[in-house]
Amino acid sequence: MDLNEISFRVRYGETDQMGVVYHGKYADYLEIGRTEWLRSLGITYKGMEDEGIILPVIHLQINYKKSAEYDDLLTVETRLKNRPLVKIAFDYKIYNESRELLAEAHTVLAFMEKNTLKPMKCPDYILAKLD
Amino acid sequence: MDLNEISFRVRYGETDQMGVVYHGKYADYLEIGRTEWLRSLGITYKGMEDEGIILPVIHLQINYKKSAEYDDLLTVETRLKNRPLVKIAFDYKIYNESRELLAEAHTVLAFMEKNTLKPMKCPDYILAKLD
Amino acid sequence: MDLNEISFRVRYGETDQMGVVYHGKYADYLEIGRTEWLRSLGITYKGMEDEGIILPVIHLQINYKKSAEYDDLLTVETRLKNRPLVKIAFDYKIYNESRELLAEAHTVLAFMEKNTLKPMKCPDYILAKLD
Amino acid sequence: MDLNEISFRVRYGETDQMGVVYHGKYADYLEIGRTEWLRSLGITYKGMEDEGIILPVIHLQINYKKSAEYDDLLTVETRLKNRPLVKIAFDYKIYNESRELLAEAHTVLAFMEKNTLKPMKCPDYILAKLD
Repeated sequence: MDLNEISFRVRYGETDQMGVVYHGKYADYLEIGRTEWLRSLGITYKGMEDEGIILPVIHLQINYKKSAEYDDLLTVETRLKNRPLVKIAFDYKIYNESRELLAEAHTVLAFMEKNTLKPMKCPDYILAKLD
Repeated sequence: MDLNEISFRVRYGETDQMGVVYHGKYADYLEIGRTEWLRSLGITYKGMEDEGIILPVIHLQINYKKSAEYDDLLTVETRLKNRPLVKIAFDYKIYNESRELLAEAHTVLAFMEKNTLKPMKCPDYILAKLD
Repeated sequence: MDLNEISFRVRYGETDQMGVVYHGKYADYLEIGRTEWLRSLGITYKGMEDEGIILPVIHLQINYKKSAEYDDLLTVETRLKNRPLVKIAFDYKIYNESRELLAEAHTVLAFMEKNTLKPMKCPDYILAKLD
Repeated sequence: MDLNEISFRVRYGETDQMGVVYHGKYADYLEIGRTEWLRSLGITYKGMEDEGIILPVIHLQINYKKSAEYDDLLTVETRLKNRPLVKIAFDYKIYNESRELLAEAHTVLAFMEKNTLKPMKCPDYILAKLD
């Protein structure tokens, strides 16, 4: 339950003139990873926002090991790091189709009330899904 | 008053593996052009949104003539096409530092009430600036 | 053979503060459309580049009818406009999951030799696939 | 000599539906910072690539403290962390116009030969500028 895998192809506009994926684009890939992690729990991030909860990223860390190339079929592995409280932390691994490890990453996001921008605890219905 | 020029450098992440600026990025450049056109009238688009007016793009057309390269100092020329009513139309030319014409573009945007998403007329205070 | 459909979800980073997909992102969606159109012919654009052919966009036109939202499952319909010669033209329609038409678009791309940047004719092996 | 400041405005397409700059866009801002740091030494990254040197990012770390908003005039402070050898490390601070600290970041880049993709030492002409 704490691990999700999602695959997608690298888009042309995600490459840069080094001929590989621009390093900044990996933030988008991690976002896809945790969105699908949530969806696999039966929760959508879109639904959470509609209920007044936002989850801004407060920490991002990426180690780049090997380049991703245009049209590569990438796989993002997203793993929940520990039981969320007011923050939720994920570890990620990104692989290409040959199962080479391209990058390892870590993000921390904070639960916040959308209207007041005040920190809040992870909603019980998410914790319930994790038990 | 109907013409504005703004210059900025091409960013690395805007290039693709053809070694030139990705064609989709020109939409961002046109946005900079019309934002600065407005600012030169003494109006900020940010301020318009705060007052409840949004300006979604409803038509975009770009003809690409020559590539833009990383670190090029580009200039966007933005020209109001005619007196705005419920829509506002702009023509653009994008040049590099050697004053080569890289692209010609045209956009149409619609004035809309932010809350109701209903079409509305161009605010009088903008029309007044144009007279 | 001349029509392809491909579906994917809107990413969070593709939205803007109007709460909908940023209009410039549609260029990326059209790119996905024609890449998959090619793949359905048994050709990859990556392979074409490896053989020394590039296909820069020389004309882009988009009419926006309805907004795309975060997490929407979009479908891009890509249709070849006519038998390619030195250029290749596509028409596109973008739909959301409720099959509402969000945008209609048109692009023209030019066949060019990667090394010389000279115009060239559409390779015979592509024409053969179209017959 | 080891510190550079560069300012630029947030673009509309850089915001997301939280109404602030998408966290992934900060990678682009850091790129601007170190490009201008280099330029202030009298070196262009474009020139380095033309000479056959590339500088891929191998580590990226960002701590987000406060949101950046559309049209904000941001300032990126880029500081060389130590004398470069085969890698070059930078620390960054991003401020808004009210001089509020929005983010702190750190990147490590590796000097590589463009053609062979082999690691190499920082070129002497850069070290000379730093002395």
